[in-house]
Amino acid sequence: MSILSSIHGPDDVKRVKKNQLKQLAREIREKLMAVTTKNGGHLASNLGVVELTIALHRVFNSPEDKIIFDVSHQTYVHKLLTGRNDEKFLQLRLTGGYGGFSNPEESKHDAFIAGHAGTALSVALGIAYARDRIGSDKNHVIAVLGDASMSCGMTLEALNNLAYATKRLIVIVNDNEFSIGKSVGAIPLYLNKILRSRLYQVVTVAVKKMLGSGKIGKSIIRHVRNLKRAIKSIILPISYFEYYGLRYFGPIDGHNIAHLEEIFDFCKRADVPVLVHVKTTKGMGFPSAVGSPEEFHGIDPALASDGSNLSESKKMISSGEVFGAELMKLARRDKKIVAVVAAMAYGTGLTALRDNLPDQYIDVGIAEEHAVTFSAALAKSGMRPVCAIYSTFLQRAFDQVLHDVCSQNLPVIFCIDRAGIAARDGTTHHGIFDLSFLRLIPNAVILQPKDAREFVNMFHSAFAWNCPVFIRYQKFYPPATSTGALEFSKFLRIGQSEELVAGERVCLISLGNMLSLAEEISTKLKAIGIGAGIVNAMFAKPLDEEMLKKIAGSYETIVTLEDNVLAGGFGSAILEFFNTQGIRAKVLRIGWPDRFISHGSSADILRAESGISADAAVAKIISASS
Amino acid sequence: MSILSSIHGPDDVKRVKKNQLKQLAREIREKLMAVTTKNGGHLASNLGVVELTIALHRVFNSPEDKIIFDVSHQTYVHKLLTGRNDEKFLQLRLTGGYGGFSNPEESKHDAFIAGHAGTALSVALGIAYARDRIGSDKNHVIAVLGDASMSCGMTLEALNNLAYATKRLIVIVNDNEFSIGKSVGAIPLYLNKILRSRLYQVVTVAVKKMLGSGKIGKSIIRHVRNLKRAIKSIILPISYFEYYGLRYFGPIDGHNIAHLEEIFDFCKRADVPVLVHVKTTKGMGFPSAVGSPEEFHGIDPALASDGSNLSESKKMISSGEVFGAELMKLARRDKKIVAVVAAMAYGTGLTALRDNLPDQYIDVGIAEEHAVTFSAALAKSGMRPVCAIYSTFLQRAFDQVLHDVCSQNLPVIFCIDRAGIAARDGTTHHGIFDLSFLRLIPNAVILQPKDAREFVNMFHSAFAWNCPVFIRYQKFYPPATSTGALEFSKFLRIGQSEELVAGERVCLISLGNMLSLAEEISTKLKAIGIGAGIVNAMFAKPLDEEMLKKIAGSYETIVTLEDNVLAGGFGSAILEFFNTQGIRAKVLRIGWPDRFISHGSSADILRAESGISADAAVAKIISASS
Repeated sequence: MSILSSIHGPDDVKRVKKNQLKQLAREIREKLMAVTTKNGGHLASNLGVVELTIALHRVFNSPEDKIIFDVSHQTYVHKLLTGRNDEKFLQLRLTGGYGGFSNPEESKHDAFIAGHAGTALSVALGIAYARDRIGSDKNHVIAVLGDASMSCGMTLEALNNLAYATKRLIVIVNDNEFSIGKSVGAIPLYLNKILRSRLYQVVTVAVKKMLGSGKIGKSIIRHVRNLKRAIKSIILPISYFEYYGLRYFGPIDGHNIAHLEEIFDFCKRADVPVLVHVKTTKGMGFPSAVGSPEEFHGIDPALASDGSNLSESKKMISSGEVFGAELMKLARRDKKIVAVVAAMAYGTGLTALRDNLPDQYIDVGIAEEHAVTFSAALAKSGMRPVCAIYSTFLQRAFDQVLHDVCSQNLPVIFCIDRAGIAARDGTTHHGIFDLSFLRLIPNAVILQPKDAREFVNMFHSAFAWNCPVFIRYQKFYPPATSTGALEFSKFLRIGQSEELVAGERVCLISLGNMLSLAEEISTKLKAIGIGAGIVNAMFAKPLDEEMLKKIAGSYETIVTLEDNVLAGGFGSAILEFFNTQGIRAKVLRIGWPDRFISHGSSADILRAESGISADAAVAKIISASS
Repeated sequence: MSILSSIHGPDDVKRVKKNQLKQLAREIREKLMAVTTKNGGHLASNLGVVELTIALHRVFNSPEDKIIFDVSHQTYVHKLLTGRNDEKFLQLRLTGGYGGFSNPEESKHDAFIAGHAGTALSVALGIAYARDRIGSDKNHVIAVLGDASMSCGMTLEALNNLAYATKRLIVIVNDNEFSIGKSVGAIPLYLNKILRSRLYQVVTVAVKKMLGSGKIGKSIIRHVRNLKRAIKSIILPISYFEYYGLRYFGPIDGHNIAHLEEIFDFCKRADVPVLVHVKTTKGMGFPSAVGSPEEFHGIDPALASDGSNLSESKKMISSGEVFGAELMKLARRDKKIVAVVAAMAYGTGLTALRDNLPDQYIDVGIAEEHAVTFSAALAKSGMRPVCAIYSTFLQRAFDQVLHDVCSQNLPVIFCIDRAGIAARDGTTHHGIFDLSFLRLIPNAVILQPKDAREFVNMFHSAFAWNCPVFIRYQKFYPPATSTGALEFSKFLRIGQSEELVAGERVCLISLGNMLSLAEEISTKLKAIGIGAGIVNAMFAKPLDEEMLKKIAGSYETIVTLEDNVLAGGFGSAILEFFNTQGIRAKVLRIGWPDRFISHGSSADILRAESGISADAAVAKIISASS
């Protein structure tokens, strides 16, 4: 029997014999590989924290002790060790299986939800504060952060409040020198370059010279030693974190369980906040993942264990690749064009730009707020910034979009990948709010292409519009309907739409990827004798008012389709337009309901669960017209 | 002739003789006092930067050199020195006058818009980056930050990117030890306590002992001196900012123009990013303001120069005072209740709580993101957090509200002051987006009271609801209609509304403060023979569905009134509800249009300009029913 299969909770982890821990780690890695290659998910980061997570559960007592994982895509190991090594783990990220992130609804060992980076320290401070006021003094609060989260404003805000909010708290910085790409900025750099610093060299040389001069009496040597110790404590990392009231330990080898246990045991007895700097290797135990952790950060399902296979979804067209290629073309022609990205070169499709035109590529780290306001300032200064941020992470920069970009009507082009339902990533990653939170902002121009070809036209046209532009798109476009290179072929007018099919009685007006659903509905309607019209909206803001007036006049029923929440979304905008114009039209809106959506095996499954399907739409249309 | 009146731009500032600078500063202070006591505005912070701003314009050449003021409420002096000492300055913050913040539309000397804290460094980095790529190498970029902005996540994100983004940039930290209240957190503390640090003491003592022992030869002394210099450069603030690649100068007396000029001149020649730490006194030259800068941060119009008068608006009921008093009552009874505030104790009405129940009050500094996620963690741990943030600043924490609070349905109570139009503060401060950006979030319960009494009932009831609650309110409630203490008198059911007046043909459904407009409209309608009904909606989410069905059935026209943008707002929610239910009702929506609203003398003036008035509404109602 395997060791892993004997583990049903943290108590069992504590019972594993020391000489069996390596075997346990090996079994966990095998499990991780088996599941993620089948279901997709965050392989590299979980491979990196196997020993760290084992050590945590051997020393601390979850759920009384609260372990808060930042981002929490690295909690697969934690799940395996806290009673979730079962059927549902094999279904990880699929319908009916466990989610890929921390979720208190799933287990009492998941202290808090997480999916966006940088929240762990704020959460840990809150839990520690509550513990100190109404809880048991015996309980520990442990925040586990990646080094990349140290560039995130939220983490730094929390750090700045650390000394004020609690007496005892353990912060573990899991330093793998990677966020998703290479970590960016001063603090991660600091963590890794301490000993190479010029300051350290200067002082070390000065001290050495003094000690080497041979003219110093015993008491002086003692003084110098004290001094040296004092200097060391300043120059070593302790100094940076001490500003924040954190006691520093490290760096510790994050793959040495015995050593980690020792340090954690020591931390338990500290009565001040403590930072443990742990060095780990992302992708540990899986050579391909160690070599290219960006690529293996979030892997697609059906990637073989040697990393060579192509996933099923690759037959679709990667929207990131199309974006990256077009941006490169344009950037080569115009030096004023610059891409701004928040630690997501690979995910947004910008690795080629980064490697080929490094002067026109800026990665600010996980720092969406700075990314957006920095882009606004570039635009104000005559540059042409293109800001690439996933839909769900753009939520972080809502105020900056409003206050810095749109209030000045600045021509920043936002390319918003992963818009719409994220399926397997679940609650914290669905990009189903952006149409609503962007639409309420004056001056925002919002659009979504139906396919790769349309994206190219939209993207090229956006450079001529001289205003804030938000192009949202899903991860993949439908397969190309025609061959040949993607080329800019048609300049678009702001707010135009296109009538794809003229019909009667029912008009389906879809935005972006929802065209495929519109076509399905149309087919089903045809089967019952209704030849529906189809309009590709292209713009969510401004709307094509002439088109809307026209279809309101010529169809009985208008059906809006959007991959966004209905509350305040695209359909809502159409209702508002008709209302303002005093146009009485029968409108049916299809989109996401007003509740949080969990993960599921596929977008289609999740859609069907929420009544976003051709059958449901047809039933609705029939019922509305009767 | 006064010196100030001879200044029409930065060139004139440079021409002022050194021995006349004190006189200039005095004249500026007199002007500031005269205008702000009449029009209201940020007196204390502007009094504090008179000399700093003079020195900036004597050394740098705006607009070629870009001076970016963080928050920018401290730009009155800058306005006076850049050609705006005219009629419009006397109308500062009023209709037709200059705005109270930096605004590029107003002057070429205003490099960027600002109103929310923490953006200056990101903006400066963007401008510097553009300068280095497409601009003139001669131009300087200067960011002027308050010490309080150092606790803001955005500033820290930018700081983390500083070394990567530019070669030359001057960051001025204007340290007055205050944000709006006392500055919070490690970094501001650090700025002020450097020399008192134990570390500094230890090393100083060690060095002194060595030097005092008398046994050291000449070469040793030299080594020790080098060492001492090295140590000093480590222990003095340079160490913290050097992590970020900033060369530190300071602290400098911010009221000594000659000294400031010297330092700035030196900075101009630096070819690395430089931080100048300037010490100023908020309220300088105005004893009352120095003594209580919180109170004088943003003063109400008609406050006399001795600070003793009560403003006109004080006859209204301060919503902050009502909130503060009720929270205190509740907090005394329940130790689990805790207020979380982001540097706004005074503005949100929580100074009494802070002073009387310090254990139940947490000021996290200007750090809205941390405030919200920290509150979420408190709620998750069984505490009852009440998070007090102005509407416009809550935009900063949109993601945290969604990702950390609402996705887990946690019972955080948000008390959102300054909701609705902010009148004199202008574009960056209007709280007219919150209904829209909150309404799209599942689980959010959103409400607004019509008066102080109703707020008390809402606030007390919210503690029983066990879900995220957002109570928005304007700065003042209407005067009390009945005497007697405000007491909790009625438990409210989530989603209830109240029919205030039963009528016919037209039903006015208003949210919160818009009731007064509904009453005005009703009076005008009565004059033309229409006895309109009035419903006080109370909740923007969830809506009172029964009430809506009822009024849809019994009135010809429904008029919605909200102090929020129409896009995605309260009226939009009602359209969505009728649409989902298949109810065909004639709805007229009154609220803010889809454009940014500037400042104006009063809310009523701004409303009238946007068609939010009784006359406009009546005309609309008549036209719709014909």
